[in-house]
Amino acid sequence: MRMRQRIGVIGGGQLARMMIPAAVNLGIDISVLAESENSSAALAASFVGDYRDVTTVREFARSVDVVTFDHEHVPADVLRLLREEGVVFRPGPHALAFAQDKIAMRRRLAELDVPMPRWAGVRTLEEVTNFVDENGGRAVAKTARGGYDGKGVRMITSATEVADWLDELGPGEYLLMEEWVSFRRELAQLIARRPSGEQVLWPVVETVQKNGVCAEVIAPAPSSVGRVSDMTAHIAETIAEGLEVTGVLAVELFETTDERILVNELAMRPHNSGHWTIDASTTSQFEQHVRAVLDLPLGATDMTAGFAVMVNVLGGPAGGMTSRLAQAMDRHPNAKFHVYGKEFRAGRKVGHVTVAGDDLDAVVAQARGAGMNFQD
Amino acid sequence: MRMRQRIGVIGGGQLARMMIPAAVNLGIDISVLAESENSSAALAASFVGDYRDVTTVREFARSVDVVTFDHEHVPADVLRLLREEGVVFRPGPHALAFAQDKIAMRRRLAELDVPMPRWAGVRTLEEVTNFVDENGGRAVAKTARGGYDGKGVRMITSATEVADWLDELGPGEYLLMEEWVSFRRELAQLIARRPSGEQVLWPVVETVQKNGVCAEVIAPAPSSVGRVSDMTAHIAETIAEGLEVTGVLAVELFETTDERILVNELAMRPHNSGHWTIDASTTSQFEQHVRAVLDLPLGATDMTAGFAVMVNVLGGPAGGMTSRLAQAMDRHPNAKFHVYGKEFRAGRKVGHVTVAGDDLDAVVAQARGAGMNFQD
Repeated sequence: MRMRQRIGVIGGGQLARMMIPAAVNLGIDISVLAESENSSAALAASFVGDYRDVTTVREFARSVDVVTFDHEHVPADVLRLLREEGVVFRPGPHALAFAQDKIAMRRRLAELDVPMPRWAGVRTLEEVTNFVDENGGRAVAKTARGGYDGKGVRMITSATEVADWLDELGPGEYLLMEEWVSFRRELAQLIARRPSGEQVLWPVVETVQKNGVCAEVIAPAPSSVGRVSDMTAHIAETIAEGLEVTGVLAVELFETTDERILVNELAMRPHNSGHWTIDASTTSQFEQHVRAVLDLPLGATDMTAGFAVMVNVLGGPAGGMTSRLAQAMDRHPNAKFHVYGKEFRAGRKVGHVTVAGDDLDAVVAQARGAGMNFQD
Repeated sequence: MRMRQRIGVIGGGQLARMMIPAAVNLGIDISVLAESENSSAALAASFVGDYRDVTTVREFARSVDVVTFDHEHVPADVLRLLREEGVVFRPGPHALAFAQDKIAMRRRLAELDVPMPRWAGVRTLEEVTNFVDENGGRAVAKTARGGYDGKGVRMITSATEVADWLDELGPGEYLLMEEWVSFRRELAQLIARRPSGEQVLWPVVETVQKNGVCAEVIAPAPSSVGRVSDMTAHIAETIAEGLEVTGVLAVELFETTDERILVNELAMRPHNSGHWTIDASTTSQFEQHVRAVLDLPLGATDMTAGFAVMVNVLGGPAGGMTSRLAQAMDRHPNAKFHVYGKEFRAGRKVGHVTVAGDDLDAVVAQARGAGMNFQD
């Protein structure tokens, strides 16, 4: 009889890496299907192979009790086939479909009556032009699949700016057009759900993007308690339940200049907006994800300090982060440094820093300082 | 050029296991020399072999940048030989010698003028009888080497009770006799030191033993701020510096009924009395140990709550802890559960629970409740 459960993670990125400490603490065995030998999660990589190949994924899945994900890119037909063979995926293929296809997600959110930007699925230059004209002469165009960190997103004022994407559309595929929202700030609401239906929320956070990439997260979002957090909590609960999510769900939101809350994007996995929970929440998003996919009771999500600020660290041209770490640690004894063990490429997320405390201004200053010192 | 440093840990127990999350977070590679395939630290075990065998330890040491320890049992001659060959051990053989030999430790502490119970090294029944007679008719006898968790310790009133140990003494070996201290409570002072000499302390804690095994730790020790913590800090700093410790040093202490503080035992590695730091200190003892052995700046040791209580979980006869985990999690959403992934044996430490909060009575009650529910 197996004494312990083994969780399998498809994808060897930093999200898989950060699940390792959570699993180690709980006494849960963890295995990773990584893309390469030198993945961020190499320590737990039991298989190296292509997550698009059904034979590889089948072999990996058979070595574990439950399969979860570092990313949303496993093809839907691979997931469906293996689920029919008895593999337990959490989240399941029906939920992941909404994270994989932004058009399907928008349709489902509309059915759930969740507030979001005006949107349309388009296939022609004329449809794009019409959408732009109806929305004040500008719009956001997104590929339905595969975008992340600003990739697959364009702010446009004319249909010709997405002519190439329209040319590439296959049969039955659409480009997503969205209203260019005038927002005051961006928020993210993290929620976890287990198969039994239990759901828990962390405080809503403010996220600051630079060049389409998350640069900074402030937890909780300043002045969010009450009206704002009530709305973000309701939205996240509605989506988690409506999409039957298992594990962590991140809902990226706009707080508009006219005080509405609109859903921007979804991620059905631990998310950059929740990295602060490792160091400043009773239960981190990674531990909660592990608990949820094993259908264990969810942990408390209280913050262990008044505020926490996370700053992402991006790869620089020289790749010398290791030498910077000692200096940054020396100057910032309160900062929690996280290094993903990834090859350096300019602009790639290679680590993050979190600082927690009760004085928001001081916490922001320390986190930014530690991030700057750490950054190459 | 190697981008990252690799730390090697000799011994695959729960202390090595709990270093894994710390190393993963910091982007440090970690390898373990484990005693068996199914060790607690199996995830990071790159070698399985005998830590007493110089060839095995040499091969392991050559695969890493710096070697540290899960336990103090590597033979001194193995350490000395490999150090001469250029292996970097932290702590070094000169420091470890004091953790391995209680007589050598007592002699060195006497030189450092550190307060401790009256003691003597003895080889004969007559010497034992004299020590017992001079100390009120009772004493504590300890084997100089190899004791832990109450093993190698006897409370005696007559020399015949240690006749077997005296018979087993080799040439130049002694039995340690210590005054039977009348103590109010037991304390532990954790300190970390890096090769450059930087030292940081955590708050002094109260430890509660049952049957010679640590059952519970309360951080900080109630009513310790001021006189008590000043004394324990001074003692730990004197020892860490005097013995040139690298890494974490745990100093186990008696607070006597007449309000003296006396040194009981030393451990030159992360220690059971510091497990609470994983969940309730800005820097855990495991992260600090990793930082110290790599000579990285040490992190802040502030508590993230007013109090933290850790309760050890021992193996029961049925070995069914996994099934108990879900129930314990359900009843105690604030508790942090740690499972070591070890084979179950009655009385063996197989996990621990930590609860943090600002109301000590509530924290103690929750931690004990979670420990009881969790325990088989």
